[in-house]
Amino acid sequence: MRDDNPDFGTADSLITIDIDAITGNWRMLDARNGDDTETAAVVKADGYGLGAAILAPRLADAGCRTFFVMSLAEAVTIRRALDDAGYAETRVFTLSGCHPGQEDDFLAFRINPVINNIEQLRRLAATGRGWDAAIHVDTGMTRLGLDRRELDTLKTMMEDAGKDGDNPLGAVNPCLLMSHLTASEDPHDDASARQLAAFTKLRELFPGIPASLGNSGGTLLGGDYRFDMTRPGIALYGLHPAGIDAEGVQMEEAATLTPAVTWQARILQHRTALAGDKVGYNGTHVLDRDSRIATVGVGYADGYPRSLGNRAQVEIAGHLAPVVGRVSMDSITVDVTSIDAGKVDAAGHATLLGPAYGLARMAHDAGTIGYEILTQLGQRPKRRFKGGQKGQTGA
Amino acid sequence: MRDDNPDFGTADSLITIDIDAITGNWRMLDARNGDDTETAAVVKADGYGLGAAILAPRLADAGCRTFFVMSLAEAVTIRRALDDAGYAETRVFTLSGCHPGQEDDFLAFRINPVINNIEQLRRLAATGRGWDAAIHVDTGMTRLGLDRRELDTLKTMMEDAGKDGDNPLGAVNPCLLMSHLTASEDPHDDASARQLAAFTKLRELFPGIPASLGNSGGTLLGGDYRFDMTRPGIALYGLHPAGIDAEGVQMEEAATLTPAVTWQARILQHRTALAGDKVGYNGTHVLDRDSRIATVGVGYADGYPRSLGNRAQVEIAGHLAPVVGRVSMDSITVDVTSIDAGKVDAAGHATLLGPAYGLARMAHDAGTIGYEILTQLGQRPKRRFKGGQKGQTGA
Repeated sequence: MRDDNPDFGTADSLITIDIDAITGNWRMLDARNGDDTETAAVVKADGYGLGAAILAPRLADAGCRTFFVMSLAEAVTIRRALDDAGYAETRVFTLSGCHPGQEDDFLAFRINPVINNIEQLRRLAATGRGWDAAIHVDTGMTRLGLDRRELDTLKTMMEDAGKDGDNPLGAVNPCLLMSHLTASEDPHDDASARQLAAFTKLRELFPGIPASLGNSGGTLLGGDYRFDMTRPGIALYGLHPAGIDAEGVQMEEAATLTPAVTWQARILQHRTALAGDKVGYNGTHVLDRDSRIATVGVGYADGYPRSLGNRAQVEIAGHLAPVVGRVSMDSITVDVTSIDAGKVDAAGHATLLGPAYGLARMAHDAGTIGYEILTQLGQRPKRRFKGGQKGQTGA
Repeated sequence: MRDDNPDFGTADSLITIDIDAITGNWRMLDARNGDDTETAAVVKADGYGLGAAILAPRLADAGCRTFFVMSLAEAVTIRRALDDAGYAETRVFTLSGCHPGQEDDFLAFRINPVINNIEQLRRLAATGRGWDAAIHVDTGMTRLGLDRRELDTLKTMMEDAGKDGDNPLGAVNPCLLMSHLTASEDPHDDASARQLAAFTKLRELFPGIPASLGNSGGTLLGGDYRFDMTRPGIALYGLHPAGIDAEGVQMEEAATLTPAVTWQARILQHRTALAGDKVGYNGTHVLDRDSRIATVGVGYADGYPRSLGNRAQVEIAGHLAPVVGRVSMDSITVDVTSIDAGKVDAAGHATLLGPAYGLARMAHDAGTIGYEILTQLGQRPKRRFKGGQKGQTGA
């Protein structure tokens, strides 16, 4: 994964995305799911910030046939990318639902809506145009999906319509019943078991319709959480949803996932400073010895979280070195006094995210989760994709 | 600024950028600078996330002639936009400097390097090709710019070369001497006065060369901080660099700046929940009464900071309502129980950033600065520019 001579071109940092790591993670999760459970791929938020239009066709090469995104705009991007790659038969579901006025685009681009509420259900049912849709029911997250009151309404609709033999849902053909877990990353949180029980009971309303409950955490929980389909997201991109705990320990299972991202940045300047000098905005770090500081070309505008100031480490020439002072918009300052000066100059760059300092660790130090770091990677860093040749075996 | 019927199109949120607010802010700062001080514009990080290629030509319409960006890639974008708009005579400075191998692109695109260290100075000086460059000297930030040791080297170079009448800097023609303030947003921080004294002394080394010290904070400090040019950034985009203090109070001066950004998002679902229900991932918010929750189509992947979970407010139908539970990747959940249900449905959207809840407040609630929020605005929201007709008067 490491590249000793990154080509930054006209940019100051470089994000390398390992396609084979991502398809390999999908294959591993698909193998865990076994033959009776489909493994979808969640590629919303531009594939968790890594490039959905490039990744979705490669996941289709690996065997994935169902994709989830958030908005219509995202769905159109993925649909085009999949069609262009010869995967017109795949399904693309839009988690935010089909909003009023979007119906024609959904049909033109063959996008499957996820129905979150009765209004959406009634509106699509009345179109008479034929919708293979997922029905999303809430089982304890209070975010998206039919709530209790709406489930009662739906029940009544189905019972009433059933009496005279009509299809109770009109033009809507429910092809998937789904719900979403709130705390699946933690196998000890009993919220998952409560949601599993609620979902299992709800399935009785929809006999014969395929069901899906598990996100990445649910896929890793396995067993009864699998149902007919799981919908992993973050795990595809190489991060275990549990991240790292307060003691800095990752779950053992995290080692089964292959990290997909390396991030390197130019050393813009290698400078000297004296004991007592202050570093960065508002002088939050005061040097306690004469020091050498490497100013590195990445800042919060690139997605390097500002909260990493005085907290993160970067790797330079095989050594970890601390980020000192505040993170600026376009640069960070790293204390490299303990690394041989010639080695720093020869390296010329720092690795912000890589084997020596991974995504779970960075998220922990930034006080957030790896999902936010990935999806907030900026547009300014240069991006490079490696791997992804059709037929190539993943990780 | 408010738009009661935002057109989200295929997206779930909409960022509206008020070009006239930005050019108006530039004009106001330029008027404060007076006739003897040039007012540049810092449009790095894609114009603080708002679209540099669109904004730079409009700032040129307003009279701006000098622009600062970070990397070569950014400089090329701005150079092209300015040339296309008939502003080939403007200057674009690249704060990270000219890296080895970039020399030809700098010359081809007529980009002015900011020289941060002796290596850059020597390399460009030896090309024999003619460089109008800024010399960046450090006066207390320990980030970019010549450090003490390098200044001594430069001094020696100039004295030695001066002896035989050569131009001590070879092909480099220093057209600007600059430094950067570390705490200029706070008029009571004495770091600024120390930097001012150091910079004033350093100027003696470069007689006759225009000088620039002030960023937005320095421009607002005015007086001796003006020199020949100031380089405002964040203030152009409508935010006072001091943000908001711990008591939630903005500096009075902030009112002289016009906010430039409104951010609105669809209400994806308006749902009911019962007392005791938990909201969002890991159930961090428990409802203490039967409630109505609006799920809104914006999340941390759009740049809505995850740290705003259980902290921010949004405006719906003229009322502020609290974000409850964690911020998800693609959505937030808002308690709208105290707002008339019909009004919520009629509104159909929430305003995340606007007159009722501004950038300084959002940054305060997120535990960061407005600069990070602006530059981290995601690619998924739809963007709309308003104003910007040539000749139109700003704010």
